[in-house]
Amino acid sequence: MARSGKLSSTGDQRENGRQQILDVIRTAGHIARIDIAKATGVSPATVTAITAELLSAGLIEEVAPDTTSEIRRGRPRVALKIRGAAHRIAGLKVAHHTISTVITDFVGKELASHEMPLIKGRMPLPELCAQIRRALEFTCQKGGFVIEDLSGVGLGLAGMVDAERKFVYWSSSLEERNVDLGQALAEVLPCPVFLDNDANLVAKAEHLFGEGRTCDNFIVITIEHGVGMGIVIDGKIYRGKRGCGAEFGHTKVHLEGALCQCGQRGCLEAYVGDYALLREANISSGNERHTSLLSLFKAAENGDAMARSVLDRARRMFAMGLANVVNIFDPSKIILAGARMTFDHLYSDKVIEEMQQWVVHVDAPLPEVIIHDWGDLMWANGAAAYGIEEVTSQTVKEFANAAA
Amino acid sequence: MARSGKLSSTGDQRENGRQQILDVIRTAGHIARIDIAKATGVSPATVTAITAELLSAGLIEEVAPDTTSEIRRGRPRVALKIRGAAHRIAGLKVAHHTISTVITDFVGKELASHEMPLIKGRMPLPELCAQIRRALEFTCQKGGFVIEDLSGVGLGLAGMVDAERKFVYWSSSLEERNVDLGQALAEVLPCPVFLDNDANLVAKAEHLFGEGRTCDNFIVITIEHGVGMGIVIDGKIYRGKRGCGAEFGHTKVHLEGALCQCGQRGCLEAYVGDYALLREANISSGNERHTSLLSLFKAAENGDAMARSVLDRARRMFAMGLANVVNIFDPSKIILAGARMTFDHLYSDKVIEEMQQWVVHVDAPLPEVIIHDWGDLMWANGAAAYGIEEVTSQTVKEFANAAA
Repeated sequence: MARSGKLSSTGDQRENGRQQILDVIRTAGHIARIDIAKATGVSPATVTAITAELLSAGLIEEVAPDTTSEIRRGRPRVALKIRGAAHRIAGLKVAHHTISTVITDFVGKELASHEMPLIKGRMPLPELCAQIRRALEFTCQKGGFVIEDLSGVGLGLAGMVDAERKFVYWSSSLEERNVDLGQALAEVLPCPVFLDNDANLVAKAEHLFGEGRTCDNFIVITIEHGVGMGIVIDGKIYRGKRGCGAEFGHTKVHLEGALCQCGQRGCLEAYVGDYALLREANISSGNERHTSLLSLFKAAENGDAMARSVLDRARRMFAMGLANVVNIFDPSKIILAGARMTFDHLYSDKVIEEMQQWVVHVDAPLPEVIIHDWGDLMWANGAAAYGIEEVTSQTVKEFANAAA
Repeated sequence: MARSGKLSSTGDQRENGRQQILDVIRTAGHIARIDIAKATGVSPATVTAITAELLSAGLIEEVAPDTTSEIRRGRPRVALKIRGAAHRIAGLKVAHHTISTVITDFVGKELASHEMPLIKGRMPLPELCAQIRRALEFTCQKGGFVIEDLSGVGLGLAGMVDAERKFVYWSSSLEERNVDLGQALAEVLPCPVFLDNDANLVAKAEHLFGEGRTCDNFIVITIEHGVGMGIVIDGKIYRGKRGCGAEFGHTKVHLEGALCQCGQRGCLEAYVGDYALLREANISSGNERHTSLLSLFKAAENGDAMARSVLDRARRMFAMGLANVVNIFDPSKIILAGARMTFDHLYSDKVIEEMQQWVVHVDAPLPEVIIHDWGDLMWANGAAAYGIEEVTSQTVKEFANAAA
């Protein structure tokens, strides 16, 4: 990315104007220039000038006025919309057993998608980079184009990720710690990559096209092998100072409690993660040995008291964790999102009841809890949305640099 | 407050401009018009027009150019500053045994202060309103003016307060629950009142003139009889949807744990609050009966194993709660603020060490922990700052309404 000196405040204003106008057009779908001026507070003359720039750069296009469906007085107004063909963006979610990829146009319309199985969940860095490139190549091929056609890639992975620095402190997909994954991917991919924690990308997807569309303050809790959290405050992902906030799974729910995979004690994940449930279930060697959640669930359904007790405690610990999130954030909405609805011990009505019981009670309605079952491709869509956002902001900066 | 119809976007821009310009002048102390234009991005012509309005309304004043201390080419520039005499604002903090009051001018300069003892900590609504009026009258008298000279009052109290609705769900100072305290005070005071949770006002004071001055993302934990939290995100107090977020003291640190005054189990306060320590310390009737933290501390100092154990667990639970705040917010800074530094079980180096041990570890420095010992008058200053902020924004709105 080219660097320029400090922009003048007029330059900044123009850059803000471009970003604002692109955002308004994206949100509206299509919108006339005069309505852009109303929505942004930017003067009509400036809107005309900026949209002319964006048109000539091919980022937006004019929509032929619709003269049939509505009776209008005067000349029909030409609307503007984002030009889909301006960019192709990929979104990837690296999960335990798969890499899910989606490629969209600049509007966000899906052009191709692919789920590629992974043999190993945790890989050394060069292998992860190679697998990511492979997943992108496969998906491009399905869409009838090549990896060089991509303008940007959004990538979500589990773990502690500093999105701004594109740096991974730790991820369940990587053998190494403290990896400059942005740099490593820059060496194998022909376009910029934007990383984030996967739960943040789910939060972004929920905000852009899911249950958080009408809401600017909400929390997403993701449930996979572990639990994650994405926080949206004032319409933006909250990432914390070092990019590693929202560590829901490693908040402590018991002083000196159960040992967690992270090496500490008493983490929520050490009570609700898959490994934690199996560890508990298998303490007694006389019983059936469970190697998966599925067998544990079946045992509980068949009345096995120990299996029931294991799932029961996980549910209660999780409900307590949720209650703490409500006590701290007092959000409008909590979205429980995941792809494993078969195992409902963390989603059931009972979880929500218990959570409500442990929340500070005031004479006002509790936050809404929404359960949103979606697959890895939706996570990948969140990653693509992040890619689109970052490519847009980079394009706007390049404009400003060219003008400076 | 007068209500107007929806403002036009031009009106909104003008209102934003006035607010921005007042904020920039307040932050700078004194600043020339041209530098205001640079700092805000508002055009010099608009800055001149808006500052003319603000001057004629008496909210700001010109500062004679300083021609002696600096050699300047050309005509010396006139600077602008907030006019202290424009308003007198009071800030109050209602604590368990006192009401602390400070009266400042519109710049924030203290004109008078007073600490009034309270006989009862928890009062019925009419009595609390009467005590607040009495505290204001006393303080005004000390300053040589009358209560009618006040333009606004900022008020902080412990409990669950919806600042926007001026509504108190619950407060340790009030016998009733769900009280429209804003309305009740409007009936006994001659000027507008702005309420907030006291920890939020400490956070505001820290942000404006304390340890959070250089920082836009930090957490304040207040330690009095209970523990409170104020959250500053992007320079603003984070209050949550219903105005009752940041409930640190009632986050659960133990599933089905110790009974809390709030009626629930396992709250942090049920392990670290004064009542919780004394309850623990006095379970054994054979031992010395403690009626205050002071006697408990003395016993621990004299080697009483039970007293030590009580303080020890409180410290560990508190450190765990702090670690959870770091895991969730990943703030730049945590400020532990309070007025009871004699009892250091929640402030000691050991607390901070243990907290650091329980925080998710990444290859980046941990947030700074600052211990800030201050008295109730500093809390009152936070309340006054809130009053100044709200009176400013109300004045700006009145301008806009007059212009509409």
